[in-house]
Amino acid sequence: MADIDAICGAAREAALLLAPMGADERNRALEAMAVAIESDADAILAANAADTEAAEKEVAAGEMSQPILERLVLTEAKIADMVRGVRAVAALPDPLGRVSYAVLMDEGLRLRRVACPLGVIAAIFESRPDALVQIASLCVKSGNAAVLKGGREALGTNRALADTLRRALAGSGGVPADAVQLVEAREDIHALLSREDSIDLIIPRGGNEFVSYIKEHSHIPVLGHAAGICHIYVDKAAGLDMAVNLTVDSKTQYVAVCNAVETLLVHRDAAREFLPRAAEALRAKGVELRGCERTREIIADAVPASEADWETEYLDLILSVRVVDDLDEAIRHINRHGSRHTEAIVTADESAAESFLARVDAASVMWNASTRFADGYRFGLGAEVGIATDKIHARGPVGLEGLVIYKYLLTGEGHTVSEYEGEGARPFLHRPLPLGGHGA
Amino acid sequence: MADIDAICGAAREAALLLAPMGADERNRALEAMAVAIESDADAILAANAADTEAAEKEVAAGEMSQPILERLVLTEAKIADMVRGVRAVAALPDPLGRVSYAVLMDEGLRLRRVACPLGVIAAIFESRPDALVQIASLCVKSGNAAVLKGGREALGTNRALADTLRRALAGSGGVPADAVQLVEAREDIHALLSREDSIDLIIPRGGNEFVSYIKEHSHIPVLGHAAGICHIYVDKAAGLDMAVNLTVDSKTQYVAVCNAVETLLVHRDAAREFLPRAAEALRAKGVELRGCERTREIIADAVPASEADWETEYLDLILSVRVVDDLDEAIRHINRHGSRHTEAIVTADESAAESFLARVDAASVMWNASTRFADGYRFGLGAEVGIATDKIHARGPVGLEGLVIYKYLLTGEGHTVSEYEGEGARPFLHRPLPLGGHGA
Repeated sequence: MADIDAICGAAREAALLLAPMGADERNRALEAMAVAIESDADAILAANAADTEAAEKEVAAGEMSQPILERLVLTEAKIADMVRGVRAVAALPDPLGRVSYAVLMDEGLRLRRVACPLGVIAAIFESRPDALVQIASLCVKSGNAAVLKGGREALGTNRALADTLRRALAGSGGVPADAVQLVEAREDIHALLSREDSIDLIIPRGGNEFVSYIKEHSHIPVLGHAAGICHIYVDKAAGLDMAVNLTVDSKTQYVAVCNAVETLLVHRDAAREFLPRAAEALRAKGVELRGCERTREIIADAVPASEADWETEYLDLILSVRVVDDLDEAIRHINRHGSRHTEAIVTADESAAESFLARVDAASVMWNASTRFADGYRFGLGAEVGIATDKIHARGPVGLEGLVIYKYLLTGEGHTVSEYEGEGARPFLHRPLPLGGHGA
Repeated sequence: MADIDAICGAAREAALLLAPMGADERNRALEAMAVAIESDADAILAANAADTEAAEKEVAAGEMSQPILERLVLTEAKIADMVRGVRAVAALPDPLGRVSYAVLMDEGLRLRRVACPLGVIAAIFESRPDALVQIASLCVKSGNAAVLKGGREALGTNRALADTLRRALAGSGGVPADAVQLVEAREDIHALLSREDSIDLIIPRGGNEFVSYIKEHSHIPVLGHAAGICHIYVDKAAGLDMAVNLTVDSKTQYVAVCNAVETLLVHRDAAREFLPRAAEALRAKGVELRGCERTREIIADAVPASEADWETEYLDLILSVRVVDDLDEAIRHINRHGSRHTEAIVTADESAAESFLARVDAASVMWNASTRFADGYRFGLGAEVGIATDKIHARGPVGLEGLVIYKYLLTGEGHTVSEYEGEGARPFLHRPLPLGGHGA
């Protein structure tokens, strides 16, 4: 077992050194990381070949699934993607230093609220080794230290990548090597989860059980999502072609992802015309339908849906279908069974849409658009840390803004609070000062 | 024991009804609350008189402290303050609906990120019954439902206040009465702490042990602070009069609060001239000094400080004093022993000040100003939910912005993700759209 105390202590020290550094220094470190990955490509690929060989044996022995093996494999093209990814992060606008609140409290007493890094981010992710590079880049860009724990099947690859990144940082003359730390053993996760003193945020990337475990076992804030139980509601005023297209896209464009739809809700007035057409299009894509009673009156051969179906994230070619009386029932169903991730309405009725957008409690709510758009890249955020379904700090697809917070900086000329209290107290001016720009 | 399931369920229902309501409806509810407190003043004062009588007996029996009794007592003037407070919250700008990000993803595909309520806020506070009214007002203003647990000594008063507020809401014709819920028994706190399904944020207001207990026993996000171990650092380039004034103000202007200074750090080059003058001024206010060895070479009769002193929040007329070699040692001491709450430097050296502001890891950092300014009202935030020392969501003095989050709203014309993937994929435009205003 690694010395988690030493790793966390070094990460916190590195974070304190990194916090006051300028964008130039952080971007220089990112460029050094990109160059180092390019020049160490052979060593990284060799480490990955060894990981892959071991994984193939496990797959052959039935001890690992084929998709995990596929996510593990690196190629020259994937290395080139990693390098491009690091440079794309470097090219993003600086998330630090922006002034989001500023007032002249009194003559000579100036208050600014300035964006600053969180400190130490612990990221725990599964097989894909490119996640390591992506998260390390986003952390360096936002002035945070990263403690990284990858999947055991990618251990050799992750070691090679972390070595490369740490050597690149050491040589960049600014950002310290300890800003990137690798944690290797599964047993160390538990120790990480209790380090409130040195870890400011945990980002878990993985399945429902994995993320739930992390949330259950730590008092450190967690940014992410466990389930993605997303719905599409076809209103009575929906255009039927559009409704079929959006249902098919939201369900089948990529089934194994959190923003794919798991339940279709249909207004009873639209059901008789819409459901047969939707069923035909969905079945052409291989989708199994599980319907409520009213659905099965129309689609007789749909599998009967149980209560459990409304709470299940299939991540598979299965769709539960429920006929509802009206918009209110659809919204109630979603707010009760949804996971606050991504929800959609299809309707030509603007007031129904406005009501849905305002009343559905979810991170992303779509009107006449696919749930699959809920993604940091598609939303134009440049890079995605993950998708969060809690309501604190950052919600939905989270970009660099999820890795920063702010501090208040007050500069005075010897101002004491006594002058502003009691008899003859001076009043505060609270005169707004210009925002934006850099305030450090 | 109350039915916490029913209370939390009703609060969540109320939050869902409240979320889409406009500012007019929420402000009308606040005005109804203000009017109701005014007209129920006699009943509230009568309930408070009974609480006070019981508390006086406990004080006489040595079972309650005098300050708790003092915080409990309501008067007509305090009722008038409550009413003014509710109206002041109503007059604040609407925290909801603001658009903080907006892009045209493609023709006809418009994305907005719109401020919305968190949902259900659980506030757990000690004796002051005015906290109930203040937190309920801030929650209604920000579209959240409030689950309120006050101190046992104020139970009768809190019941009267909650009844008044709930009746006012019921009569206001908009915001539902269940948006304000009272939890009465101490045993119910534990049940509240495990209701991740219906509570979105816990705001604990009380001492260090109380807040630490809440944080330790819940996986729900907590907004607040446990300790306030604040420092003032007197640099070698400090003006000595200013340094003495700021030290006295930061330590003694009000000792029992989180933003009062607990440790004085002094540059060794300033110590010999500054410390005797500071000691004289502090002792004139009754402050006991506990010094490191180098301090005691100058202030011979200071009590020797132990390691524990650097980690102690006295909340009393006691100040630990340490002589440091330079700015770096001062910053290291603060980042190691501080509670990330409020820190101050006194210096005429701008570059030393900039370094301190950038490198000290705390929610509020002051240059030539008292630590006692760290307060929502003084910072011009209008109303304060509390002071937060974690780094997630909201930090430092937190106003209404700590009670809101955002949701992404995407409106399309039938756009599917398939069009933007694979061969012949359409590119995204990601053209920025105007921000601000109201986006609901």
